[in-house]
Amino acid sequence: MTFTRDTNIPFSRDSLEQLLKRRFFYAPSFEIYGGVAGLFDFGPPGCAFQNNIIDVWRKHFILEEEMLEVEATMLTPHDVFKTSGHVDRFTDWMCKDLKTGEIFRADHLVEEVLESRLKGDKLARGETIKEEEEDEDKKKRKKKVKEIKNVKLDDEVVKEYENILAQIDGYSGEQLGELITKYNITNPTTGGKLEPPIEFNLMFDTAIGPSGNLKAYLRPETAQGQFLNFSKLLEFNNEKMPFASASIGKSFRNEIAPRAGLLRVREFLMAEIEHFVDPENKSHPKFQDVKDVKLRFLPKDVQEAGSSELIEKTVGEAVASGMVDNETLGYFIARIYAFLVKIGTDPSRLRFRQHMSNEMAHYASDCWDAELQTSYGWIECVGCADRSAYDLSVHAARTGEKLVARQMLSEPRTVEEYEIELQKKKFGPKFRKDAGTVEKWLTSRTQCELEDLSKELQENGKITASIKGVEGTVELDSDLIKIAKVKRTEHVREYIPNVIEPSFGIGRILYSVFEHQYWARKDEAERGVLSLPPLVAPTKVLIVPLSNSAELQPMVKKVSTILKKEKIPFKIDDSGASIGKRYARNDELGTPFGITIDFESVQDESVTLRERDSTKQVRGSIQAVVDAIKDITYSDGNWKEGTAHLAAFNSE
Amino acid sequence: MTFTRDTNIPFSRDSLEQLLKRRFFYAPSFEIYGGVAGLFDFGPPGCAFQNNIIDVWRKHFILEEEMLEVEATMLTPHDVFKTSGHVDRFTDWMCKDLKTGEIFRADHLVEEVLESRLKGDKLARGETIKEEEEDEDKKKRKKKVKEIKNVKLDDEVVKEYENILAQIDGYSGEQLGELITKYNITNPTTGGKLEPPIEFNLMFDTAIGPSGNLKAYLRPETAQGQFLNFSKLLEFNNEKMPFASASIGKSFRNEIAPRAGLLRVREFLMAEIEHFVDPENKSHPKFQDVKDVKLRFLPKDVQEAGSSELIEKTVGEAVASGMVDNETLGYFIARIYAFLVKIGTDPSRLRFRQHMSNEMAHYASDCWDAELQTSYGWIECVGCADRSAYDLSVHAARTGEKLVARQMLSEPRTVEEYEIELQKKKFGPKFRKDAGTVEKWLTSRTQCELEDLSKELQENGKITASIKGVEGTVELDSDLIKIAKVKRTEHVREYIPNVIEPSFGIGRILYSVFEHQYWARKDEAERGVLSLPPLVAPTKVLIVPLSNSAELQPMVKKVSTILKKEKIPFKIDDSGASIGKRYARNDELGTPFGITIDFESVQDESVTLRERDSTKQVRGSIQAVVDAIKDITYSDGNWKEGTAHLAAFNSE
Repeated sequence: MTFTRDTNIPFSRDSLEQLLKRRFFYAPSFEIYGGVAGLFDFGPPGCAFQNNIIDVWRKHFILEEEMLEVEATMLTPHDVFKTSGHVDRFTDWMCKDLKTGEIFRADHLVEEVLESRLKGDKLARGETIKEEEEDEDKKKRKKKVKEIKNVKLDDEVVKEYENILAQIDGYSGEQLGELITKYNITNPTTGGKLEPPIEFNLMFDTAIGPSGNLKAYLRPETAQGQFLNFSKLLEFNNEKMPFASASIGKSFRNEIAPRAGLLRVREFLMAEIEHFVDPENKSHPKFQDVKDVKLRFLPKDVQEAGSSELIEKTVGEAVASGMVDNETLGYFIARIYAFLVKIGTDPSRLRFRQHMSNEMAHYASDCWDAELQTSYGWIECVGCADRSAYDLSVHAARTGEKLVARQMLSEPRTVEEYEIELQKKKFGPKFRKDAGTVEKWLTSRTQCELEDLSKELQENGKITASIKGVEGTVELDSDLIKIAKVKRTEHVREYIPNVIEPSFGIGRILYSVFEHQYWARKDEAERGVLSLPPLVAPTKVLIVPLSNSAELQPMVKKVSTILKKEKIPFKIDDSGASIGKRYARNDELGTPFGITIDFESVQDESVTLRERDSTKQVRGSIQAVVDAIKDITYSDGNWKEGTAHLAAFNSE
Repeated sequence: MTFTRDTNIPFSRDSLEQLLKRRFFYAPSFEIYGGVAGLFDFGPPGCAFQNNIIDVWRKHFILEEEMLEVEATMLTPHDVFKTSGHVDRFTDWMCKDLKTGEIFRADHLVEEVLESRLKGDKLARGETIKEEEEDEDKKKRKKKVKEIKNVKLDDEVVKEYENILAQIDGYSGEQLGELITKYNITNPTTGGKLEPPIEFNLMFDTAIGPSGNLKAYLRPETAQGQFLNFSKLLEFNNEKMPFASASIGKSFRNEIAPRAGLLRVREFLMAEIEHFVDPENKSHPKFQDVKDVKLRFLPKDVQEAGSSELIEKTVGEAVASGMVDNETLGYFIARIYAFLVKIGTDPSRLRFRQHMSNEMAHYASDCWDAELQTSYGWIECVGCADRSAYDLSVHAARTGEKLVARQMLSEPRTVEEYEIELQKKKFGPKFRKDAGTVEKWLTSRTQCELEDLSKELQENGKITASIKGVEGTVELDSDLIKIAKVKRTEHVREYIPNVIEPSFGIGRILYSVFEHQYWARKDEAERGVLSLPPLVAPTKVLIVPLSNSAELQPMVKKVSTILKKEKIPFKIDDSGASIGKRYARNDELGTPFGITIDFESVQDESVTLRERDSTKQVRGSIQAVVDAIKDITYSDGNWKEGTAHLAAFNSE
C-alpha cells in the first residue's frame, strides 16, 4: 500500500523523537530515577509494534522456511565465551582522564576531535559548511566537542586527518594511543591529559550460585546457545541436512558511551538464524524463487577504491559473478530484503554492504550487512555472515563432543586414516576414574594431531600429555596404545557444517521504520503522521463516535464486538475532542483506519471508513467495512481494491 | 475437548522427563559443557508450546481486558531495588561447611534432615512407610540425605520435629541457626560442622558502564518496571482509572540450590499484571460475568487450624463473605482459573490457597496463589496479591516524583491541610544550584511530616534537615519558609492507587500441564501421549502419506498448501517408518491431529483425519477436514461437533 505523501515539511528528528516519547512508543528506563544511558522501556504502542514485527519475522522465516526455534538462557558460563573468543576479543578501547574520572571510547574520541578540527580549518579558510554537515556537527557537539575553533591547519595535516578518518574503524588500541599522542588529543572539555587506551570487555559479568565461583556473562548474541544445541537439533530434524535454527531474545552489550537513542543500547532484542550447511554444497533449493530480485549492493572492492556508489543487480547475477559467495547467502539476502520492505522500510533507503577484509571477523568467509539510511547515516540493521565451521569446531575441540553431520555416500570410498587402538584391559586399571576423560581426549584428536602423537610414540616409546580434568601429566606407552594408519571403506561422510547467520537487531530496524514512515501534512508541521504498514501498526482501527451522545453507544458496541470477534486490534476514542483532533492523535500512533459512527449509522447501520495517509473516506455496512480492513491488513490487499465495493464519501 | 483416558499405566515422572528430553521440549543448558543447575533451554516443540501459551495469555488478558503492555529492561540500577526492599529483604539463608566448601540452603536442610529422622524413627518402630512417602523420600535422598537410619526417637522429639516441619517456611535465619545447633544438624554426607546461617541475596548483580561504579541487578520480577512507568501509563490512558499494565519477560533469581527441573530455575519467563485501582473502590465492572464460577479455595483460617480441606464456593460467595478481600481480586482469581483450564491444566488438580499472615509480604493486604498439583506436590504457579499502595509510595518518596491518580469530585469538599509558603526571592539566592532539590524535598513531605516541621519551625525558629543530593545540613528559618494549616476547597481528589498483581510463572505452568496431560495407552507403558489442547499444541497436524510412493506426493503438496494458507502449523512425516510408529512419535509431541493420505486420496481427493487421544478416525474432502481442524483448534469446537459432517472411518 503506497500513497503519495503530499507534504512540504522537511524531516525533523527532533519532532519525531518528541512524538515517540509523547505517545509512549518508548522512553528512557528509570526516568524518575534520572535514567541510565542506553536503556529504554517500550510503552503500549512500542510493545505492540515490536510484537507485530516479531510475529511477521516468525512467519516469514521460521514457519515459511521450517526453521527450528530454540530458546537458550541469557546467563552463560565463562567457559563458553572463553571458547567462542568473546572473553578475549569482544572489546572496545577506552581512555580515562585520571583527573576528572571521565572515560572516552578511544576511536569515537579521535574521530570527533579530528572532525571538529577539520571543520575549524574550513571556517578559518573562509569556507562555508554545508547544512547537513552543520547538523551532523551540532549533534556531535552536543556530546563531547563543545565548540569548533577557527584554526587553520597545514594542507599536509588536513590530508593526514582525512586519511585517518577513512580508516577509523580499523585501528588497534596501540595505534589509537599513538594517534592520541601524535595529534595531542585531550579531554575536549578540560584539555586534560588522557591515559593510553585500555581494553574494555563489552560483556556484563555476574556469578552463578552462592559461592560466587562460577563466573558468568549475559550473552552478547543468541548464537552460542544455538551452536551448543546443534546435536540435539540435528537429531530433532531426523539427522537431515541442511537445516536452520532460530532464536528471538534479549542480548546485552555494556557500551562504553551509548548514544543515538535506540541505535546503540545496552539491552536489545535480537532475532538470529543459524543455517547449518554442508561446506561442499552451499546451494539452496529455493534459490530459483529469488534469483530475479533486484537489489542495491555496495561490494568491498568498490569501498576499497574509496567509492560508495551502489551497484544494482539481481541476486542471481550477484551469486553468478562471485560477488556474493554462494546461493544460500544470496537466498537469505533476498529474504531479508523482502522482510524489511514488508514491515515498512523504504527500499530506496536500503542497501547491502559487504564487509571489507579488515573489518570482517577472523572466522567469517563473507559478510553482507543490510543497512538502512537514517538521519544518523547508514545503519547496520541486519548482518548476514558466513561464519564457516568456526563455532562448531572450537566448541567441539574444547568439550570433546563431536559436533558433526553425516552424509550417506552414494558409493563407498576408501580412506586411509590414523586410528587409535587401546589395550582396554590395562588402560582401565591404570587410569581408573580418569579413564573416561583420557579416552575422550584421545578420540577427539584431529588427524594432524594423531600424526604427531604417532611420531612421538615411535620416537620415545610413549606419549606424554596434560589433559584438562586429569591431575599431573598423563603417560601412555606402547603397551597401552597403538596409533597406525589404517585403510577403511567408508559408507558415510562425516563433516563439520558451516553456518550462515542472518542476525537482526530489532530495535534498530524499528527505529529506522519510524524515520522512514514519519512525515507531516502539508503546511502543518505539528500534524505528524506515522505511516506504519497496517500489518505491523500497533492498533489497526480507531472507532470514533461523532459525539458522545448516548444514542451512538449501541453502534459503538456493535462495531467493537465484530472487531473483537475478528481479532482485529482496535481502540475507541469517545473523548469530547473534535473529530479532527482525535484522528490527529491516532495519525501519530500510526493507526491506519478510522471508523466513524454518526447519526446516519443509527438509521441504516452504515459507517465511514477513513484511511490514515490519504485521509480518503468510504462508506458501507459494518461487515463490509470490517472485511475491507481485514483484507488490506492481513491478506496483502491494498486500499483501492480492498474498498472497491464501498461508496466514496465526502465529509462536509 | 475431553476424552476418557483409557489407560491402566500409572503416572511415571521418569518416563515423562525422558520423553520431554527425547523430543527436545527442553534440556539442560550448556549440556556439552557439563550444564549449570537451574538453567534450561527450550527446543522447537517447547518453544512453540510456550509461544502458544503466551499468545493465549496476551489475548485472554491484554486484549480482552484492554491492558497496557509495557516492556522494561531487565538490567536495573541498585537504587530501584534498594527502594523496593529487594536489596535488603530478597534473601534466603545459607550455611556453609567450611571444610568441604559445600553450601546448603538452611531451611531446606533442616527440613530434609528432620524428615529423614522421622522416617528412620518409623522404621525403627516397625511401621511401614507408605509407597508415596517412599517415593517422596527417594527423591530427597537423591539430593542431600543419602540414607535413612533406623533410629528410634523419643515421643517428645517426634512431636517437636513435626511441629517444626509445619512451620518451616516461617523461620528467621537466627531461628534456623538455633535449630541446627539444638538438633545437631550437620553436613549429611560428611557429618561435618556447619557455620551459622548467613543471608544470601537472590539477585544476580553486575555493573553498568565502563567505570564499574553503577551497581545494577538483573530484575527478579517485572513489576518494578511497570511501577516506574506509572505516570506515563496513566497519561497514555487519558488519565482514566482504574487500568492495568502487563509485562511478559524474563526474570532472574540466583537460587542457592536449584532442584525440581523447571519448577525452580535461575532464569525464567514471567507474565505479570499490575492493576491500578482506587483504594476506596475495589469493585470491578465485569465482576457480574464471573460471580457464578465455582472454585476450590484453601483459606488461611483453615490452614491455621492445621487442615488442608478445600472449600468449594462461587467467586461471588467468596467475596460476599469477605474470604476474598474485594471484587477486583475475585475477578482476577476467576480469570486466572479460566486461563489455566483453557491451556490444559486439570481443574481437579487446581486450587487457590490464601497466604497465611506470617508468610504474606509485609506490604500485601491479601494474597491468593493458584496452585497446581504435581508429583512434586502442590506448586505455586500464579500469585494474585493486593500489594496496596506500597510500591508507588516508596518510589514516590525516594524520587520526589508524585505517583498519583486524580478523581474529579462530584461535589467540591473543604479540606484543611498543612501548606508551605516559600519566600522565593530569598530562597533561590540562598540555595542556588540546590534550590530545586530542596524545594522538591519540601513539596514531597506528607501531612504528618509537615505537622512535625511546622512544630520545629515554631519552637526553634528554623528547620534543619539533611537532604539527599545536597551537601551538609540544610537550614530554613522563618524568613524563608512558613508552614500553616490552610482551608481549601477541593474539586479534585488525589490518591495513590493500590495495586492488584496477578503474577504468572510460565515455566511452572508449562511443566504442570505436561504432568496433567501425560499418560500412556492401555498395556503399553512405552506409548506415551501428551494430550495438549489443540489451541496450545506445538504442531496441530501431522501429514502422513501411507507410503513414500511418488504417486502420493502431489496430494501431500496439496494438503500442505491449504494448511499453510490457513496458517495452521503442521509437519510432514514421509519417513519410511510404519504408520503406527509415525503416529506414536507425534503422540509424544502432543500433535492433536493426523491427516493420512492413501491411494484412495489420489482417486477422490479424500483424506483421513485421526484424533490423537481417542485414535478415532473420520474421512472427508481435504477442505472439510481442514475446516474441522480449524474449528476445533481455534473456535472452541470439539471433536464430536467439529467432525459431525465427516464419515466415520475404520482402518483395516
